[in-house]
Amino acid sequence: MPQHDAVEVISAKRDRAELTDSQIDWVIDAYTRGAVDDAQMSALAMAILLNGMDRREISRWTAAMIASGERMDFSTLSRPTADKHSTGGVGDKITLPLAPLVAACGVAVPQLSGRGLGHTGGTLDKLESIPGWRAALSNEEMFAQLESVGAVICAAGDGLAPADKKLYALRDVTGTVEAIPLIASSIMSKKIAEGTGSLVLDVKVGTGAFMKDVERARELATTMVGLGTDAGVRTVALLTDMSTPLGNTAGNAIEVAESVEVLAGGGPADVVELTLALAREMLAGAGVTDVDPADKLADGSAMDVWKRMVRAQDGDPDAPMREAREKHVVAAPSSGVLTRLDAMAVGMAAWRLGAGRAKAGDAVQDGAGVVWHARPGDEIASGEPLFTLLTDEPERFERALGSLAGGYDIADPGTAYEPSPLVIDRIS
Amino acid sequence: MPQHDAVEVISAKRDRAELTDSQIDWVIDAYTRGAVDDAQMSALAMAILLNGMDRREISRWTAAMIASGERMDFSTLSRPTADKHSTGGVGDKITLPLAPLVAACGVAVPQLSGRGLGHTGGTLDKLESIPGWRAALSNEEMFAQLESVGAVICAAGDGLAPADKKLYALRDVTGTVEAIPLIASSIMSKKIAEGTGSLVLDVKVGTGAFMKDVERARELATTMVGLGTDAGVRTVALLTDMSTPLGNTAGNAIEVAESVEVLAGGGPADVVELTLALAREMLAGAGVTDVDPADKLADGSAMDVWKRMVRAQDGDPDAPMREAREKHVVAAPSSGVLTRLDAMAVGMAAWRLGAGRAKAGDAVQDGAGVVWHARPGDEIASGEPLFTLLTDEPERFERALGSLAGGYDIADPGTAYEPSPLVIDRIS
Repeated sequence: MPQHDAVEVISAKRDRAELTDSQIDWVIDAYTRGAVDDAQMSALAMAILLNGMDRREISRWTAAMIASGERMDFSTLSRPTADKHSTGGVGDKITLPLAPLVAACGVAVPQLSGRGLGHTGGTLDKLESIPGWRAALSNEEMFAQLESVGAVICAAGDGLAPADKKLYALRDVTGTVEAIPLIASSIMSKKIAEGTGSLVLDVKVGTGAFMKDVERARELATTMVGLGTDAGVRTVALLTDMSTPLGNTAGNAIEVAESVEVLAGGGPADVVELTLALAREMLAGAGVTDVDPADKLADGSAMDVWKRMVRAQDGDPDAPMREAREKHVVAAPSSGVLTRLDAMAVGMAAWRLGAGRAKAGDAVQDGAGVVWHARPGDEIASGEPLFTLLTDEPERFERALGSLAGGYDIADPGTAYEPSPLVIDRIS
Repeated sequence: MPQHDAVEVISAKRDRAELTDSQIDWVIDAYTRGAVDDAQMSALAMAILLNGMDRREISRWTAAMIASGERMDFSTLSRPTADKHSTGGVGDKITLPLAPLVAACGVAVPQLSGRGLGHTGGTLDKLESIPGWRAALSNEEMFAQLESVGAVICAAGDGLAPADKKLYALRDVTGTVEAIPLIASSIMSKKIAEGTGSLVLDVKVGTGAFMKDVERARELATTMVGLGTDAGVRTVALLTDMSTPLGNTAGNAIEVAESVEVLAGGGPADVVELTLALAREMLAGAGVTDVDPADKLADGSAMDVWKRMVRAQDGDPDAPMREAREKHVVAAPSSGVLTRLDAMAVGMAAWRLGAGRAKAGDAVQDGAGVVWHARPGDEIASGEPLFTLLTDEPERFERALGSLAGGYDIADPGTAYEPSPLVIDRIS
């Protein structure tokens, strides 16, 4: 590998030059080895944040991060593979019904997930509220489960894109998270290394999402679709609304329960709509066009895969879900139409109730979270339950209530409500 | 002190906000204590480099760096104080004749200097070529010498602006040296902490200087003058040419010898001109207007202070200077007028001959360096000596010759030569 120098690479980006392929390969490899230190990488990350990278640079950066670790390969599986990644939203339990649903349609879903940090929750945290379920699988177990069940949701091992793991932790403490080239390459390096044949990105937009406005969300989506395409992974992105939380619950066990409702053919309309929209994209990406996923929810086959998937990871899908020890009901202060329910307010409340963690390594409460009993557009009556707050630690209620205050609007009875579309755009 | 958070401060500057006084005080203090780490400070330094700081921010940043350590106070001295700082140039031995000259005029000069890194040389390195001379003085020794001799040139202790020392080392490896707010605050925090009553800045411009163009040099000078003024130090800056090296020598012992020539009433015209110009500014800053420093060179009183100053630090001003073991003469390749002598080329040659160091902590050669036997405007004859290269290690000649190649132009005999002014501008 050609030799470069950290100051040379940093100075180039500082002075708005494009980094060469050789500079990118060197700096990622040297950072992984420790020959470029955290202080040098954080200066480079800030220069990238402020001066940008073009598509070639971001593709190369992503490829270099993939090359820092192992790359999985599912091409010997008997079925095509598809995966979905969400940039994170409040009440976003979609992975739970989606993975078994797509598997029931004949496409294998190898989903490597993470734990949550902050208000948006983590898929593994939700699944870990199922008694016995374990997130850690060996590569052999994962492969075997994909072959036998068709879907696996498990923890990403340390072997995938270790450069990304190191860089992400650094960005988190140096104010350099908010760089689209770095966000896009971080997500896509893991997803490409994971070995999926096709990928659907659910890029969230709105108050409860990392991306607050549509233009930046579209830029992120476009960048990620380009990276996937450049790496030979069929990739599309849906821009979806995250101003309002998804479904009627935000938490861990309560989101699992809501997901099971969807798999049973019921569940909130928005969760069903988004699950089906993403499933159709995943099937199309995998080349399966003759199956309607709605049928697989209706006929119970998605539920069947769900139960087998949970059992394969030592979980009991029929065990009663853990419940929070304490409950607090918030009554509607007036009668009328709920015209706004803010995703960030709900997400912060759930987080403060113990559903999320303040820092990596903290435990989460299985039973904690928020249930909302109305969705925007619904008529509600004064004094009826609007929210139910759940936690094991009643001292958490006060701060959670503080998060919810101002997080919703009730307009006069009969006020017209125009729902905004859940799927805002599609980028391919 | 109010509590802040590193990511909050970094993000503010990243997003082009002005940092508050409280944020600046907190981040410098926390960095000095280690509560803000190098990776966080380097991200902030890059954000400052790319997004800038205004005058209030830079003044506060400087004050916070001063507050990180001790601040000297010479107000009880029987004489006013003045100091000079040069941003670094090739053959820039001006401090050596200047400090004793100004002291001979009745103004005390407390000059805390550094060792060189790179091609511009360090004042302490030059003085250490005098047998016996020592750079390290206690504060008590420094004060006593200022009272008895009137001038002291010594190493800055670790107690002055420790935040700057730490930040400078970090900037050096993270591509964040080239930020005017950080350059200005680094220089001025040390100079203000040093306790001088007035200050003259010699801001070099040209190929051999850190600042290659006049506009950036003027911006740096204006910033530093503002910082000095804000801190109550009477400060002026001269912008001086560093396209051509100063005098006829670049090295250590050979620059001391040239300085002694100036103190003896001779020496190269440009060194004398700049020494007098800076001396007049220092005297004016200290309120002394009735002494002409040229008289103090002519009557030997500056030389007298020089000898007392060297002896006070255990040096022998009359000892023979150390000579390099090896010598290589470069003959003029043609006859004509020397129209260009590039400061960077000469500086690099001296550095490669061993007069400077590749990294902090390396030893320098006392006798190494370059002598040039003609200055721009001089007529030279083919075959006559143009340069003499000096080193203890003859294997260094080849790379030094490589530096000099292309570093000068000889035009046809009789070609008109228009000298450019040595002092380009004055900023107060």
